[in-house]
Amino acid sequence: MGETSLRVAMRDHPQGMVSEGDFLVEQTPRPAPGPGQALVRVRHLSLDPYMRPMMNPVRSYVEPLKPGQTMPGATVGEVVESNEEALPVGAHVACMLGWQEYGLVTKDAARIVDLDPGDISLALHVLGMTGATAHYGLLHLGDPKPGETVVVTAASGAVGSVVGQLAKIKGCRVLGIAGGPEKCRYVTEELGFDECLDHRADDFEQRLAELTPDWVDILFENVGGPVLDALLPRMNDHGRVVLCGNISDYNRDEPYGLKGISHLLLHRVNVYSFVIADHRDYWPGAIGELAGWVKEGRIRFREDVAKGGLKGAPSAFISMLTGRNFGKQLVEVAPANVASPAGN
Amino acid sequence: MGETSLRVAMRDHPQGMVSEGDFLVEQTPRPAPGPGQALVRVRHLSLDPYMRPMMNPVRSYVEPLKPGQTMPGATVGEVVESNEEALPVGAHVACMLGWQEYGLVTKDAARIVDLDPGDISLALHVLGMTGATAHYGLLHLGDPKPGETVVVTAASGAVGSVVGQLAKIKGCRVLGIAGGPEKCRYVTEELGFDECLDHRADDFEQRLAELTPDWVDILFENVGGPVLDALLPRMNDHGRVVLCGNISDYNRDEPYGLKGISHLLLHRVNVYSFVIADHRDYWPGAIGELAGWVKEGRIRFREDVAKGGLKGAPSAFISMLTGRNFGKQLVEVAPANVASPAGN
Repeated sequence: MGETSLRVAMRDHPQGMVSEGDFLVEQTPRPAPGPGQALVRVRHLSLDPYMRPMMNPVRSYVEPLKPGQTMPGATVGEVVESNEEALPVGAHVACMLGWQEYGLVTKDAARIVDLDPGDISLALHVLGMTGATAHYGLLHLGDPKPGETVVVTAASGAVGSVVGQLAKIKGCRVLGIAGGPEKCRYVTEELGFDECLDHRADDFEQRLAELTPDWVDILFENVGGPVLDALLPRMNDHGRVVLCGNISDYNRDEPYGLKGISHLLLHRVNVYSFVIADHRDYWPGAIGELAGWVKEGRIRFREDVAKGGLKGAPSAFISMLTGRNFGKQLVEVAPANVASPAGN
Repeated sequence: MGETSLRVAMRDHPQGMVSEGDFLVEQTPRPAPGPGQALVRVRHLSLDPYMRPMMNPVRSYVEPLKPGQTMPGATVGEVVESNEEALPVGAHVACMLGWQEYGLVTKDAARIVDLDPGDISLALHVLGMTGATAHYGLLHLGDPKPGETVVVTAASGAVGSVVGQLAKIKGCRVLGIAGGPEKCRYVTEELGFDECLDHRADDFEQRLAELTPDWVDILFENVGGPVLDALLPRMNDHGRVVLCGNISDYNRDEPYGLKGISHLLLHRVNVYSFVIADHRDYWPGAIGELAGWVKEGRIRFREDVAKGGLKGAPSAFISMLTGRNFGKQLVEVAPANVASPAGN
């Protein structure tokens, strides 16, 4: 039919900070579904920090990207053509189509999203991967007890914002750490954390000591680097570090040298690392529980949506990696009126 | 009676590498036991790396030492005077009398050691704290499975040597890391590790990669620093790091900056920290099991005994911290014929 689908690929492995020149934006032929397949028109693409280390040619839990490969990513969209009964035309689905306008899925590679069209983007964050990550990391690994002190870095981010609100639900005292006064205000005033510190402030370490008089029982760590080094000496005996991200290293040529390892030993602190994709069985229960709290208004969130289609994805991605986004970073690949399956 | 007891105290907090001038050696009056107390003549003093961080004025799981305080430490000796039925004169006991010739204990502060006089020093290592540490750290936290690859740093040391032999008993492939060819030969030829690498060798990192083709499932870490940084990229998915010591940092003014934290995340590696003193209930079972393996010749050990009395403790301690000892570092505070309670 000559119909096309825009895609964004990695041009080459970036050196240090990623730039728009590291991406390739091009039109490709729109694929047709084969037997058991459905064609999905992507409405929203999720941009997440994990994508950055995948661009490095380093052994990891996923294959590193090769130059010319389409950038990966979680997406939500609507089925527009189908040869698969379980994925009827008009269905809303969450799937991993990456940075492209159209893609093919089988029923095992797509999850039907039972949400209103206006809300399907939630399946990309609070009711999707980042929500499940927050739930598993804090509640399953961190095991918070009422009255414990929980510190969350990248507190205004997609994972951190849910972690802190879950810790409040569990009766903990919650200190967020974020970049800049505007994010800190959001974390305390809108998300309800007890306190939030700006890690860029001159008196950050002094304020951190003042605000953790009973030490830190659980550190939910998304950032790493100097902020982690400031936090390790504040850990309580038998504290837990949930290591979820290390975003401060993703754009360094040379990783940060962490000096505070001895504090783990001095205070018998365990460090738990995980990737939520390893725990697929955990998702439905966690997302069901989160959906209830979202409905009750006990878990709030913010989206930062880059409009104007897929070609804006590289600059939105760079913005997120440097902390300029505010809320869960999404790209609106197709506006609602275009993507809605009117007439089907 | 005018009888004396030599003691060694910390003169002041050392700066960086500890030196003999940081210690004070002096005669003190020998104490007399009060009600419920026994006087112990120390036969052997154990020197251990944990003593070094205690000399720094830093919050830890123990109170830091104050200038003028007697150096702490585990000891074995014999009861020479007693007002406590449970500790009769002539009994062999393990207790924490520190760097002194005589000291008072109550029954709660001393463990009767059921060993021949020639073997009571074993209660200071393989059948004492370091043995229990190796047992708890490897078997309880590391949970080794047959066929897994276990790496042990400071492999010829008091903890490391037992860890590697326990891993062999559990059917693992065991790679030791030690300083120098003589220690490496001991680790493979006498202790029966599969391989041992000299971390000072020029080709250390290359050989490490060659000898861990299936990656590392358990890293039992006593050393930290650059050796740990070389090991982190070799960790297997779902590997475990048992963090037992960080000896390479103990004498630095500035801690080493660890660059490999991202590998924990990439491979979902957990890090477990512990102090065996927290787990007193675990000791009897572990030491009983170890005693059986020692008797069967399945766990071997070596002692490095500084002769000539307590005044040699500072130089033996410095020697241990710089890796010049070979085997469990002890000080013979009183020779066997002097300490034996002949005539009682």
